[in-house]
Amino acid sequence: MSNFNPTEQAHRRFNPLNGEWILVSPHRSKRPWQGQQEAPDRSQRPTYDPTCYLCPGNTRANGEVNPSYEGTFVFDNDFAALTPDVPTGTTDIGGLLRAEAESGVGRVICFSPRHDLTLPEMSVMDIRRVVDVWTDEYRTLGARPDINYVQIFENKGQVMGCSNPHPHGQIWAQRTVPGEPAKETIQQLAYFEKNGRSLLTDYLAIEEREQQRIVFENDHWVVLVPYWAIWPFETLVMPRRHVQDLTQLTDAEKDALAEAVQQLTIRYDNLFQTSFPYSAGLHQRPTDGQAHESWHLHMHFYPPLLRSATVRKFMVGYELLANAQRDITPEYAAQRLREQSNVHYKQTLD
Amino acid sequence: MSNFNPTEQAHRRFNPLNGEWILVSPHRSKRPWQGQQEAPDRSQRPTYDPTCYLCPGNTRANGEVNPSYEGTFVFDNDFAALTPDVPTGTTDIGGLLRAEAESGVGRVICFSPRHDLTLPEMSVMDIRRVVDVWTDEYRTLGARPDINYVQIFENKGQVMGCSNPHPHGQIWAQRTVPGEPAKETIQQLAYFEKNGRSLLTDYLAIEEREQQRIVFENDHWVVLVPYWAIWPFETLVMPRRHVQDLTQLTDAEKDALAEAVQQLTIRYDNLFQTSFPYSAGLHQRPTDGQAHESWHLHMHFYPPLLRSATVRKFMVGYELLANAQRDITPEYAAQRLREQSNVHYKQTLD
Ligand SMILES: O=P(O)(O)O[C@H]1O[C@H](CO)[C@@H](O)[C@H](O)[C@H]1O
Ligand SMILES: O=P(O)(O)O[C@H]1O[C@H](CO)[C@@H](O)[C@H](O)[C@H]1O
Repeated sequence: MSNFNPTEQAHRRFNPLNGEWILVSPHRSKRPWQGQQEAPDRSQRPTYDPTCYLCPGNTRANGEVNPSYEGTFVFDNDFAALTPDVPTGTTDIGGLLRAEAESGVGRVICFSPRHDLTLPEMSVMDIRRVVDVWTDEYRTLGARPDINYVQIFENKGQVMGCSNPHPHGQIWAQRTVPGEPAKETIQQLAYFEKNGRSLLTDYLAIEEREQQRIVFENDHWVVLVPYWAIWPFETLVMPRRHVQDLTQLTDAEKDALAEAVQQLTIRYDNLFQTSFPYSAGLHQRPTDGQAHESWHLHMHFYPPLLRSATVRKFMVGYELLANAQRDITPEYAAQRLREQSNVHYKQTLD
Repeated sequence: MSNFNPTEQAHRRFNPLNGEWILVSPHRSKRPWQGQQEAPDRSQRPTYDPTCYLCPGNTRANGEVNPSYEGTFVFDNDFAALTPDVPTGTTDIGGLLRAEAESGVGRVICFSPRHDLTLPEMSVMDIRRVVDVWTDEYRTLGARPDINYVQIFENKGQVMGCSNPHPHGQIWAQRTVPGEPAKETIQQLAYFEKNGRSLLTDYLAIEEREQQRIVFENDHWVVLVPYWAIWPFETLVMPRRHVQDLTQLTDAEKDALAEAVQQLTIRYDNLFQTSFPYSAGLHQRPTDGQAHESWHLHMHFYPPLLRSATVRKFMVGYELLANAQRDITPEYAAQRLREQSNVHYKQTLD
């Protein structure tokens, strides 16, 4: 019999999705904070900003004019990190200096013409349009022979390096499969070959039984703080059905995803009564022509805030040099999110 | 023949030390930056601050009083993430919810009694004292049967989560070997078994030939921007001699390490005329009683600044969800650092 108490004592947890460990130090959240404070985003923005390069009808840096779009709007990133025109080529000096050319595409997705909105302030119907764009883009980009992986993501808030508050996300699609999805491919395949079910199917069954890490559920999706979460209020959004990518979802499942995203992000905003920053993105099967039956579509949310609208978690010294580390337990984070209202706090301020 | 041009076009580089790839997008540094700006640290601090819990003679949160130390001062972290008293214990639910208790020690190292200094403003002789403390702590902690890995590091600057500007570093030492050094152990062992020399010995020979990534050298140490650097001005500090940890260094090698750290950090401060933030730390062989002959001692510096004292690199959406990514090439970063003066800019302002 062990007296080890994971709600109070340091321990490591294993992330079966990427095969890495994370250090949890629950007792540490008691230390006082005297470091950097972030400016909370409480700005009131106009519905239209003539200087915003994402607003309808405005001119972008390269001279192109945005259409007067009414729902969503997608275009090629004017400053894409990946471009299609790179010739193939490799370098190899002694097996130690190794490089290979990389090509791809960068896209920008405006979620709404309204400059002042964010996902939690949009209706489920309007978020559903965003889900449809994600689906179409994944399908179209993934069909290209030069694209073997499509990363759809959103950086929200200045603290997450977002340089324009207009609600938007990005896509980086490329020839090779990047590190994180490559690890998830290996881990999911090994699990599937051993157990005949997807890793996330079995994981979800355990979480349904335990309940303590679940934040929100509807008929088709579950939002939870994963047992192995790194960021304080990190969540995993996953479909109950084992599908590999967005194109396999039914209409009802896409509506339910829109609702799950809305309900999660409302709770995030309510937690510290601020426009809650995060990076979020979809993980789907590589588009390399293989079936990847073991893959289970999901979405990660990585928000940096820890204690309040102004105090974030820093992933620095120990984390960069040694190991990911968190202070509050995933169970506590889930409880905090679960107890938030499902109505956005701004709607209750009048 | 390929027309692939790595100084202009996107490519991936391989990090042989940890086995991971990094995406390099050199053309992207041309994009305009409209996002968050950091406050540069240009504060003038007093030599002694009565409210600082690290200054000599002051009282800490737990009531202990710091001695009137004159060189360095080391003590157990009052809010350590790792503590020795955790009983062993594991959890395993379906192979998917896995945890194990972790124990260890947290230590704080004050580099100087002077509240107003930082490493680049200290003399080589005073930094040498810090090197001696690192060596002693590694030896003493590493000798404990309950400690199998010792991580020595420094978080410098508010942007790196440092909550007190008094010059100091930390040690987190623990029972298990954390993720990053575990990966480096695997990679270095595989290389050593194949080639009979340490990975960094052979890597250094290539860099000496190419010269373009070297920032500073003396008789015993080389500072360079590694071919696979992630952070814009990331550097690797390594001894010419293949040793596994600090305790094997000669006096001359320790003096030379102090000089390398001073010269590197002076160039960092000079680059943007600011107190340059970073996380830095030593990687040494695990203290698990094995010889780890393949290990080659080294130090990493991970600074976040990209374009100026106020514009940093954000490791967010794509980086968190998919893959590490950088905008400027390591070669360009090395050139910028190499051309900085070896005299601290504050000494030239009078
Ligand atoms: O220990 P400190 O300085 O209070 O805290 C800082 O360094 C730690 C180790 O890298 C991090 O876990 C914290 O997020 C950071 O704020
Ligand atoms: O593309 P943006 O929004 O200009 O840039 C932001 O997202 C990118 C992708 O995560 C990051 O590489 C940048 O560091 C960040 O500032």
